Amino acid sequence: MKNRFYFDTKPNENILELIKAEREEIGFYELCHNDVSEYEAYAKSIDAQDIVVVGIGGSALGTSAIYKFLKYTNHFSKKLHVIETTDPLVITDEMEHIDLQNAHFLIISKSGTTVETISVYKYIASIIEITSKNCTIITDEGSLLEKHAIDSDIKVFHIPHNVGGRFSVLSAVGLVPLAMIGIDIRSLLDGAKKIYNSFFNQEGYDTSLLKKATYYAQTANTYNINCLFSYSEVFREFNAWYVQLWGESLGKKQIHSQLHVGLTPVGLIGPTDQHSFLQLIVDGKRDKSVTVIKINNFENAMEVPNNSLKHLESLDVLNGYKFSEIINMQADSIVESLLSLEHIPLDVIEISQINAHSIGELIYYYELLAALVGKMLDINTYDQPGVEMGKIILKEKLNKK
Amino acid sequence: MKNRFYFDTKPNENILELIKAEREEIGFYELCHNDVSEYEAYAKSIDAQDIVVVGIGGSALGTSAIYKFLKYTNHFSKKLHVIETTDPLVITDEMEHIDLQNAHFLIISKSGTTVETISVYKYIASIIEITSKNCTIITDEGSLLEKHAIDSDIKVFHIPHNVGGRFSVLSAVGLVPLAMIGIDIRSLLDGAKKIYNSFFNQEGYDTSLLKKATYYAQTANTYNINCLFSYSEVFREFNAWYVQLWGESLGKKQIHSQLHVGLTPVGLIGPTDQHSFLQLIVDGKRDKSVTVIKINNFENAMEVPNNSLKHLESLDVLNGYKFSEIINMQADSIVESLLSLEHIPLDVIEISQINAHSIGELIYYYELLAALVGKMLDINTYDQPGVEMGKIILKEKLNKK
Repeated sequence: MKNRFYFDTKPNENILELIKAEREEIGFYELCHNDVSEYEAYAKSIDAQDIVVVGIGGSALGTSAIYKFLKYTNHFSKKLHVIETTDPLVITDEMEHIDLQNAHFLIISKSGTTVETISVYKYIASIIEITSKNCTIITDEGSLLEKHAIDSDIKVFHIPHNVGGRFSVLSAVGLVPLAMIGIDIRSLLDGAKKIYNSFFNQEGYDTSLLKKATYYAQTANTYNINCLFSYSEVFREFNAWYVQLWGESLGKKQIHSQLHVGLTPVGLIGPTDQHSFLQLIVDGKRDKSVTVIKINNFENAMEVPNNSLKHLESLDVLNGYKFSEIINMQADSIVESLLSLEHIPLDVIEISQINAHSIGELIYYYELLAALVGKMLDINTYDQPGVEMGKIILKEKLNKK
Repeated sequence: MKNRFYFDTKPNENILELIKAEREEIGFYELCHNDVSEYEAYAKSIDAQDIVVVGIGGSALGTSAIYKFLKYTNHFSKKLHVIETTDPLVITDEMEHIDLQNAHFLIISKSGTTVETISVYKYIASIIEITSKNCTIITDEGSLLEKHAIDSDIKVFHIPHNVGGRFSVLSAVGLVPLAMIGIDIRSLLDGAKKIYNSFFNQEGYDTSLLKKATYYAQTANTYNINCLFSYSEVFREFNAWYVQLWGESLGKKQIHSQLHVGLTPVGLIGPTDQHSFLQLIVDGKRDKSVTVIKINNFENAMEVPNNSLKHLESLDVLNGYKFSEIINMQADSIVESLLSLEHIPLDVIEISQINAHSIGELIYYYELLAALVGKMLDINTYDQPGVEMGKIILKEKLNKK
C-alpha cells in the first residue's frame, strides 16, 4: 500500500520511545510475528461447510472485515456466518441459512460471559448437540468459558491477556475462523509484518504514519470527525472494523486532565456515498478529515459496452471504459474536488490488489495509527470503561424477573 | 410511534409560518396525500420475481430502507435487488443472483443522466433485450431518460420537479418498486399522513417535533453529531437513508452568512454497536446527541432455553427470556446509563410493530424534522451544490480518453 498526504506537520518524535515501551506491554504489536502452524493444522482438520462465528464487537468485526474484503474475488467453498446480536429476527434468519449438520461453531468471547454470545450459544446448544467435533471456543485463559470448554472436551484457543478485543483480529480470534474458510493467514500476517518493519525497523521509524498520527492528535479539536471514504463495497465491513477501533480506542477521558476527548470515525463507501455524505463534507462545518482508499487493480474486466441508447448518446463517453476504471476515476475526481477546498485535511491510501497481504497491511496500519494517536491524546487506548454501566444495569434488570 | 424527550427547550414557533409557506413550494410535504391507484394497478401487472432497482442515492436508499425493515417479518415472494454503484465486483455478484428472464428492471434517475445508473443500464441492455415488458423508468418530466423511454415504448413515472431525490421515497421512486414487491403502500402513506396530521392539523402544531428541531438547531455548534441508535437489524438501511437525508440536507453554507454549517449523522445498530461506538458516546467529547429507536413488539417467540452450561450457570439468569425482551432491556439499559451522564441530549422513539404504517411514520417524521432544522439553520435544505464539482471533474476525465 501507498499513502499520499495532502497536509503537512512535523512528526512528534517524542512519542516514539513511549510507543516502544508500550510495545513491551501491549500484546497487539507482536501478533504479526506469531507462528500460525497450529491454527492451520487445526483448521485443516475441520471439514464443515458452514463456519459460524458466535461473537460480538472485537470477537467478530475483524474476521468479517477480512472475509468480506476477499470473498468477491475468491470464491471460497466454505461460508462464514457471524451471529453478533440478540436480535431474534437476525438470529432466525441466519440459522435458516446454516446447515446444522454440516456446521462448525466458534464461540468467541474474551471475558467468557458476554451476554449476547452466551445467550446465542445456549440457543444453539438447545437445537443441536455441541461436541468436540462441531465446536471451538476462543477466550481468555482462566475464563469460565474456558472451564466450560475443558469440561466439555471442546478445543480452546486463548486470546492473550494483553490483547484487547478490538486489537485481536490477528490472534486466534480472527486467524482460526479465517483459516477454516481457507484464507491464507500467513500472507495476512506478512502484510501486517510489512507495516511493522517499515515503522519499527527500516532505518529508524517510518515518519509518514507518525506524521498522520501527529496531525490527527494536534487538530483533534478542529477536525474531530475522521471520514474513511473507501472506494469499493469490499471495504464495507472493514469500515465497520475501523469505526470500532477508532471510536472505542480514542473516545476517552484524558489520563491527566480527565477531560472528555475523542475522534469520531465515519465509514463511507464510494461512489455510493458521493450521493449521500459528500455534500456534508464539501459544504458543511469544517470539522472533518478525509482518507480515500482506492484499489489500483480490481482484476475485473467488466466494461461499459459500446452501445448507444437513444437520446442518451451524451453518455456514450462511458463506452469501453472498464467499471474498475470508472470507480477509480470517481475517487480521483472527489480527491481533486476536495483538494480545491480549504480546511479539509486529505490523504489517499492505495492498495495494489485485493488479497490477504493487502488487508493485513491495512489492518496493522490502522492499529498502529490508533495506538500513536491515543498516546498523543494522553488516554488509555486499550480499555473501554464507558460500556460497563450499561452492562451492570442490564444485569439488574435480568435479575428482577 | 411515541417519542420521549429527556431534554427541554422552548419550541421556536416563529418558524411555523415559514414552513407553512415552504409547504406550498416544496413537494415532499404533500406526497403522503397522493392517490396510489395507478402505481398499484401497474405493479399488479408485473409478474417478474426479481425486482431490480438501478439507481443511486435518493433513487435507492428509501426503497431499500422500507424493504429491509419489512423483509424479516414478511416473507415476500418477490425479491428486491438494488444496483447503486459502479463497483464491478458488486455488479457481477448482484447479476449472478438475478434470473434475467424473470426480472423487471426499474431505471431510476431524477436528472436522467446519472453516470452510475446509466452505465449499469447500458451494461444490462447489452446482456438482455430491454422492452416495455421488463423495464420501467422513473425520472423527471422532460429529462433525456424520459425521451429515451418514450421512444423505446417503456412506461415512465415522473418524480415531481419540486421533490428532491432524498425526499422522494413516497413518490413513484419508492412506491412503484415497493408495490411490485407486494408491500402495502397505502398503509405506508397512512403512516406518513398520521405525522402530517399531528403536526399540521391537530389543534395547531404538534410542538414535540418542533421542540426537537429547535433543540438541534440551537445546539448545532455544541452537539454537531446526531447518533441514531436503532435497536434491531431491520433498521440497517433506514439508518443509511437517515444519514443521507440528514447529511445532504443539513451540510450547507448558510444563506445569509455563507458560513459552513452542518449536523453530522451517525447510524448505529443495537446491541451490536454497544461493543463499538458506545464507548465514544459515554467517555468521548461531548459533541453528540443520541436518539434510541426501539420496537415494542417484535412478534417473535424465540427465547433463551432453560438449559444450563457447566461453569456458565451465572448466565442462567437469561433463561426463559425472549430474545426480543433481552434486546429491549439492552436498549433500556443504555438509555438509563446515558441519562446518568451530563451533556448527552437523549430521546427515545418507540415503534409499536414492524409494519408499513410504522416505517411510513418514521420516514415522514425524519423528513419533517430535517425540514424544520434546515429552516432554522438558515440553509437551503433541498439542494446539493457541493457534489457538482466532482461530477464536472469526472466528465473531463472521461472525455480525455
